[in-house]
Amino acid sequence: MEHDIQSFKELSKNYKVIFFDSFGVLKNADGIINGARQTFENLIQSGIDYFILTNDASRSLEHLSQNFKEIGFDKDIPSEKIISSGMMAYEFLKQKINSGRVVYVGTEQSATYIKSLGLEAVSIEDINFEEAYLNTIKALVFLDDEGFEWRTGINNCVNLLRKINIPVIVANTDTIYPTNNNNISVAIGGIADFVESILGRHFIKFGKPDIQIFNYAFEHINKGKQIYEKSDILMVGDTLTTDIIGANKFGIDTALVLSGNTIKSKAETVIKSLGIAPDYICNSIRS
Amino acid sequence: MEHDIQSFKELSKNYKVIFFDSFGVLKNADGIINGARQTFENLIQSGIDYFILTNDASRSLEHLSQNFKEIGFDKDIPSEKIISSGMMAYEFLKQKINSGRVVYVGTEQSATYIKSLGLEAVSIEDINFEEAYLNTIKALVFLDDEGFEWRTGINNCVNLLRKINIPVIVANTDTIYPTNNNNISVAIGGIADFVESILGRHFIKFGKPDIQIFNYAFEHINKGKQIYEKSDILMVGDTLTTDIIGANKFGIDTALVLSGNTIKSKAETVIKSLGIAPDYICNSIRS
Amino acid sequence: MEHDIQSFKELSKNYKVIFFDSFGVLKNADGIINGARQTFENLIQSGIDYFILTNDASRSLEHLSQNFKEIGFDKDIPSEKIISSGMMAYEFLKQKINSGRVVYVGTEQSATYIKSLGLEAVSIEDINFEEAYLNTIKALVFLDDEGFEWRTGINNCVNLLRKINIPVIVANTDTIYPTNNNNISVAIGGIADFVESILGRHFIKFGKPDIQIFNYAFEHINKGKQIYEKSDILMVGDTLTTDIIGANKFGIDTALVLSGNTIKSKAETVIKSLGIAPDYICNSIRS
Amino acid sequence: MEHDIQSFKELSKNYKVIFFDSFGVLKNADGIINGARQTFENLIQSGIDYFILTNDASRSLEHLSQNFKEIGFDKDIPSEKIISSGMMAYEFLKQKINSGRVVYVGTEQSATYIKSLGLEAVSIEDINFEEAYLNTIKALVFLDDEGFEWRTGINNCVNLLRKINIPVIVANTDTIYPTNNNNISVAIGGIADFVESILGRHFIKFGKPDIQIFNYAFEHINKGKQIYEKSDILMVGDTLTTDIIGANKFGIDTALVLSGNTIKSKAETVIKSLGIAPDYICNSIRS
Repeated sequence: MEHDIQSFKELSKNYKVIFFDSFGVLKNADGIINGARQTFENLIQSGIDYFILTNDASRSLEHLSQNFKEIGFDKDIPSEKIISSGMMAYEFLKQKINSGRVVYVGTEQSATYIKSLGLEAVSIEDINFEEAYLNTIKALVFLDDEGFEWRTGINNCVNLLRKINIPVIVANTDTIYPTNNNNISVAIGGIADFVESILGRHFIKFGKPDIQIFNYAFEHINKGKQIYEKSDILMVGDTLTTDIIGANKFGIDTALVLSGNTIKSKAETVIKSLGIAPDYICNSIRS
Repeated sequence: MEHDIQSFKELSKNYKVIFFDSFGVLKNADGIINGARQTFENLIQSGIDYFILTNDASRSLEHLSQNFKEIGFDKDIPSEKIISSGMMAYEFLKQKINSGRVVYVGTEQSATYIKSLGLEAVSIEDINFEEAYLNTIKALVFLDDEGFEWRTGINNCVNLLRKINIPVIVANTDTIYPTNNNNISVAIGGIADFVESILGRHFIKFGKPDIQIFNYAFEHINKGKQIYEKSDILMVGDTLTTDIIGANKFGIDTALVLSGNTIKSKAETVIKSLGIAPDYICNSIRS
Repeated sequence: MEHDIQSFKELSKNYKVIFFDSFGVLKNADGIINGARQTFENLIQSGIDYFILTNDASRSLEHLSQNFKEIGFDKDIPSEKIISSGMMAYEFLKQKINSGRVVYVGTEQSATYIKSLGLEAVSIEDINFEEAYLNTIKALVFLDDEGFEWRTGINNCVNLLRKINIPVIVANTDTIYPTNNNNISVAIGGIADFVESILGRHFIKFGKPDIQIFNYAFEHINKGKQIYEKSDILMVGDTLTTDIIGANKFGIDTALVLSGNTIKSKAETVIKSLGIAPDYICNSIRS
Repeated sequence: MEHDIQSFKELSKNYKVIFFDSFGVLKNADGIINGARQTFENLIQSGIDYFILTNDASRSLEHLSQNFKEIGFDKDIPSEKIISSGMMAYEFLKQKINSGRVVYVGTEQSATYIKSLGLEAVSIEDINFEEAYLNTIKALVFLDDEGFEWRTGINNCVNLLRKINIPVIVANTDTIYPTNNNNISVAIGGIADFVESILGRHFIKFGKPDIQIFNYAFEHINKGKQIYEKSDILMVGDTLTTDIIGANKFGIDTALVLSGNTIKSKAETVIKSLGIAPDYICNSIRS
């Protein structure tokens, strides 16, 4: 099964709603993907709705929206159009943790939501190991790979979880992300996997390829009515193991773009070796 | 965190809906779990609704319901009260595969639904490897550990997937199941994992701990309205790595019963070593 | 690091001893590799010594030698020139198990050596689960993927090891092997990995890439004296993850041949993606 | 199979040579294990020989010996009595890398041996990613979890290995080590596993449970003659997954001590769940 390269503009006309991944699709380390603004203009003019489904727990939806605006999307991506893995994790916290301390791995900014729930947010770097203190900790949440010294943070996670049995929430399952055209960084999901494998535990994970985020988006656009069918929706992503397999499983069509994690010269090889096939391949959302 | 043993009868009164796992909770290899019928009488009398959420793709919902009737549940578990991982897989097939051959791993009975979609169902034992034939195959579905010779079936899966790139659906993620009080058997999810690891591929998997089945049940009981909150529901299961962590993630309360995979003498050790904590522990649903 | 294709004939002249893998290097499913006999004639004439290092526990060294003779190697590969992973496993059994029953997974032929140690060899298909019987079992040995019905065999392994704590020996770590030009079969090492993952256990494994077999060969050719240095030896194999990384680790030079598991069109891609680099690449040992 | 606790003093009389693990057996984070000095006096008086087999690449044998002296072993453990995983890695480097830069992950002290081979040792923190520079790098070696900032170090490893294909050597396979009575730290082997899993690569690893270190010790004490049989040797360790399974596989008897990683209350549970059985269990080497 060799794929022809499709025009995204033409392809998008067959759908009523487009779900976009963010990094590698709408933006990269240098800023907005070339021509992406025009693509959004076209969608709006054609009456095609869209949502951004992103594995990101480092910032609130408002901050994510603000960032899209700053890099050149103007007002096209308000916070209501964004659904993040962080939101899924917050829903869980809200449902299950009513009081006490929640330890977070990430930046202070990433912990904003924890505080807004009336919980005490403590950085993994700042915990102490006295028993009275440990007893006040209700959950551990992995949010961002920045904001803490890795040696202290990772070792504190390991030792904390050897001493107390609390829910551990991973609010972004990505293992790597690009930092510029040539380099990548380990992401918070990769750090969580590392701690999980050291301990032999099972953490509670939120984000693509899990279908929860697709499901949330689907309910959101249907608002309790049956406005859209799954066949009305196209997922556009740059990563086979999150965007494409997740949308495959959720039962919507998929387009792989070659502007991010999956590069053109390797696309067919990777598709074959992983066994994850997109319905379509486009160079980028630009054309 | 040591757990006290709770009375299931008392516990259930705090909820409006109970989700039950099937094997190890309602029945075991010897038939109905002692006292389970009475439990259902009590729920019905108290106006507490219930659903069965089961990782099973070996039979249709009608057959599953019929089996509950035969072992002693009378009419308490009609097919409308059952939600199976098989159903999730069928929804996917219906959405994504319109024509052609679907190869299945399992019994002929387990393939009934494939045929009802107008697709040609071929047992993994009966495929041939000529190119013209291979081109007509649209998907591979793992349904049941019975109905095929393992050596032929597993090797055919491996060779088929080395030659063609098709969606692979795992309709039951369980890796083992009890065959009697003392022994277990590898389940179809275990066989699928084996093939996946030999090939280094990513299959599309349906069943607990994935939250999809919980979500489907939740939508089903709410019928598009907001009748029940997540806090109205209790999940009752015997397996930490499927029932309990899945329901944890979906955000509903959980009760572990000790009548199946998790035995009393090891419960606390396993809870600690896996890091998966139920909200409650009951001996069985009987008392 | 792109590799040029080397002439094996020229390359071999730089070494005093050549270690050969068997399958994919000397023979394949059709019989002897084209021209391999002539290569051995040349080595003998040039005074270059050689040994066959093979992951194989299905037959004795005598049977392996006999098979080489039958497919066309005449007397060039006597049993003294063969070192098998089976031998390593037998050394272990001899050292550690003095009496009682040893359960084997494989053909009756593969169990010959167990019997020659004065132990009772019982096929995994023929065990019973009564406690008195279980107490007489001293070890479980994985030998061959043939000779037993997989469903019964694999489930018996799982249930046996849940009931008693005995050493489990894997006498061939290969996970797959080619059955003809187009197809592969799961090998006994793959089946052992499957059982290990179902149980979460650690088995005792013999065979490349473990350096033990290289070490044994090295001691064997040096006979307690310091006749050969590691730099005098070249390992020739078709599989990066066993032959090449094992020899790399043992500290001898390596040549990858493209006549077996690693095909020419994918060699550089696989080398890069696995991160395992041979020192040289040859089409086959023929030229 | 329940184990009685044996007296180490009595047990040791049945052997001619004792192999000891270091951390958790001879010393812990507080210093020398209580009574260990006396044990060595007894061995010397009884004419029982001994060697230390340690997964350690952070220091030279001389430094390791010096440290034993300082904590109270006096002159009982000279460097000739120590065999480290670092040594195994150095042998490999000496054999395979003749010139150029070797990048190391660890302290400056841990890189001493690289320099003594005439190679240029560069810390992972100090590399640059220009092509001309990258071309001079011949290997990457994981030595110690200290001496570098983890975020920079781990990300540099990932990016370096995405750009160039060089041998990667892990000179200590331990994943964790105790830092005091209550806490552990991720060890360099754990960090290497993390990088390996992010990249999907195969690194070259040295240290127990690999039998290479046992083999080296065995050859060392036999000095080319057949002085000792394997049945003359007892391995004493605190870790099932390195000391005990490695020695099991090498074919020598094993004693688990409960003074380190495996604590008394959990020993039988861990032995059963891992399926790794020592021949004997002792509280410590003291008694």
